[in-house]
Amino acid sequence: MLIVHKYGGTSVGNLERIESVALRVSKAKKAGDDIVVVVSAMSGETNKLIAYAKHFSDTPSRREMDMLLSSGERVTAALLAIALQEMGVDAVAMTGRQAGIKTDNAHTYARIESIDPTRMQGEIAKGKVVIVAGFQGINQEGSVTTLGRGGSDLSAVAIAGSLNADACEIYSDVDGIYTTDPRIEPKAKKMDFISYDEMLELASLGAKVLQSRSVELAKKLKVKMIAKSSFSDAEGTIIGEEDKNMEAVLVSGIALDRDQARVSLREVSDRPGIAAEIFTILAEEQINVDMIIQNASSDGLTNLGFTVPQSELPRAKGIIEAFDHDIGGKDFDADICKVSIVGVGMKSHSGVAATAFSALAKENINIEMISTSEIKVSMIIAEKYAELAVRTLHNVYELDV
Amino acid sequence: MLIVHKYGGTSVGNLERIESVALRVSKAKKAGDDIVVVVSAMSGETNKLIAYAKHFSDTPSRREMDMLLSSGERVTAALLAIALQEMGVDAVAMTGRQAGIKTDNAHTYARIESIDPTRMQGEIAKGKVVIVAGFQGINQEGSVTTLGRGGSDLSAVAIAGSLNADACEIYSDVDGIYTTDPRIEPKAKKMDFISYDEMLELASLGAKVLQSRSVELAKKLKVKMIAKSSFSDAEGTIIGEEDKNMEAVLVSGIALDRDQARVSLREVSDRPGIAAEIFTILAEEQINVDMIIQNASSDGLTNLGFTVPQSELPRAKGIIEAFDHDIGGKDFDADICKVSIVGVGMKSHSGVAATAFSALAKENINIEMISTSEIKVSMIIAEKYAELAVRTLHNVYELDV
Repeated sequence: MLIVHKYGGTSVGNLERIESVALRVSKAKKAGDDIVVVVSAMSGETNKLIAYAKHFSDTPSRREMDMLLSSGERVTAALLAIALQEMGVDAVAMTGRQAGIKTDNAHTYARIESIDPTRMQGEIAKGKVVIVAGFQGINQEGSVTTLGRGGSDLSAVAIAGSLNADACEIYSDVDGIYTTDPRIEPKAKKMDFISYDEMLELASLGAKVLQSRSVELAKKLKVKMIAKSSFSDAEGTIIGEEDKNMEAVLVSGIALDRDQARVSLREVSDRPGIAAEIFTILAEEQINVDMIIQNASSDGLTNLGFTVPQSELPRAKGIIEAFDHDIGGKDFDADICKVSIVGVGMKSHSGVAATAFSALAKENINIEMISTSEIKVSMIIAEKYAELAVRTLHNVYELDV
Repeated sequence: MLIVHKYGGTSVGNLERIESVALRVSKAKKAGDDIVVVVSAMSGETNKLIAYAKHFSDTPSRREMDMLLSSGERVTAALLAIALQEMGVDAVAMTGRQAGIKTDNAHTYARIESIDPTRMQGEIAKGKVVIVAGFQGINQEGSVTTLGRGGSDLSAVAIAGSLNADACEIYSDVDGIYTTDPRIEPKAKKMDFISYDEMLELASLGAKVLQSRSVELAKKLKVKMIAKSSFSDAEGTIIGEEDKNMEAVLVSGIALDRDQARVSLREVSDRPGIAAEIFTILAEEQINVDMIIQNASSDGLTNLGFTVPQSELPRAKGIIEAFDHDIGGKDFDADICKVSIVGVGMKSHSGVAATAFSALAKENINIEMISTSEIKVSMIIAEKYAELAVRTLHNVYELDV
């Protein structure tokens, strides 16, 4: 089997941890598998380099930032190769360029365009463990590019796809994907399996383990991902294709996103283009709008609600308050949160949302906004009820059984 | 004019110093010259990375060491480019590879084989300051190589040669080449000019300012080097082609090397091959032999003397003491030093050496060994006379006038 391992910044956070990673890789290699390892920078390194750059400029050029930031992963890759060689494991370190990773020209958030795995394959054929510096590639003119925060996950999945690997194991400091945050609901259970689509919803709804872009790419390339802990030998959670032959689980998990603020606009003129006008201005000011809800109109007036990250509420408020026509009333609230239920089973079962609404109602939790997709239901509620809502939903869908 | 600047680790040792370098480069660019800058890693960085590698292995693979160590120069190059851009100077950072530097395959002490300056020239033509990460290139298979300690000087000279630059300014924490060490002889004077050959002798005799390999390359490529301080606006010293039309200065400088130990072998059989036998064993044990003196033989016996770095004397002593044939007497002395006078004028003037010998004799300084080349005279004396000998010679050749 050919397995791609990916170790994040915490897993390679100091020399002792790099040594542990080397031991884990060595064990996997000796068990008979071919191993390619993708590494992040040692935790703290990237932030240190960013601070260096900010010393000189608030808006450092993105091309030079890429040359700066890509150095951290190279250091880890070289050190891990040296550690493996010392253990008698034949290993070779590669930069993104050497691993054949070509990207577009969007410095600091480049997209992988292609991978030429020839050199990696040559080294694997010689029996070597290949260590690749994650998060980076080169563009057409040969300059170094980086893939954005969390980009090493993306490197790992893309490499796994290009090598037709049997699995892409993503190691971090948590041992898998849980039905909800165990710090809120101690009965939360680690899942053995979750589908790409569910994982995507959970990631976008606030679960931090896997980067959304990498899950999307894994889905596209049909790469089996496994989320595992680099600090234990626990089994981890497989992220893969939904099994069409099995009855889908109704609800897989509950996600909580506290970083939300609500903007409600009442008595908005229900004429074409008014929503477009509002959201165009917000986009121009680079304010990220998450949920958008508009109720069906009556008597030419409608209600329009949306959420933004809490840190962007003051700016959003400024813009909306300056908007002096076609809006009857404006209301802003930072003390809210978003609770979501996710599950592919919802697609074919009605009543999943109703169960959530009545469970929250029984606890006297008022739902301020609702937004649904095929496999998720998101609800905006007062922030003070966050934990209670998570535990209530976790229980009503029997996730702790 | 096209000028290459090179800044060493001390000159870019922290963010404030990088800022100063940016100001200096900006000033030079605004004065109308085209500027290419070659930078070292921030001082301490390379040693930190070496310590990281040594944590895992006493003999880390040289290929991975190159990937590891080359990261420091990239960081400096990116930061300097960002600092310049913030000052409104259009700048672009390049790795060794991007600057077109191809080397042989000797990881950690690679030799530059060729430079393709196309990309640098393109950026210069656009009016940009080009910042190149020193000390590195890539080999034929595309792996990163480094040029050995002090290799950034070499990068700078090679780049200056490939671009046909008007000068290569080497910035460090001293403001030029002195007639001798000013800490020993306060009357030492900074030279305005020194020839390549004299500089080579001075560098190999213990003057630390310029790396010998870079001076050799500058001589070969006819690159005018200028040794300057990054902490002042002083003029510096030009290292260039000896001016054949001018009468050469008799003696240019006095060098002192304290890191020497003497081995004297008496009554050595004067048969062919005995010297070869001794020095082959020393070479196999990787002991660096500096001066070697053998006197003309009489009655089938000869005296053979040589010097080694002080730290290697114990090992040399062990080897020589185990050498149990053909040698009458053995004598070892670590308390010696080497004082040298250097000057192209010696070539055409007899009596230069005699002046040195009689000046030292007048001070009752005994000369234990003498070795001469066309443009230098080196003398081994007791270490306690080191400063006195330097001042005496500096005075007798009127270097302080």
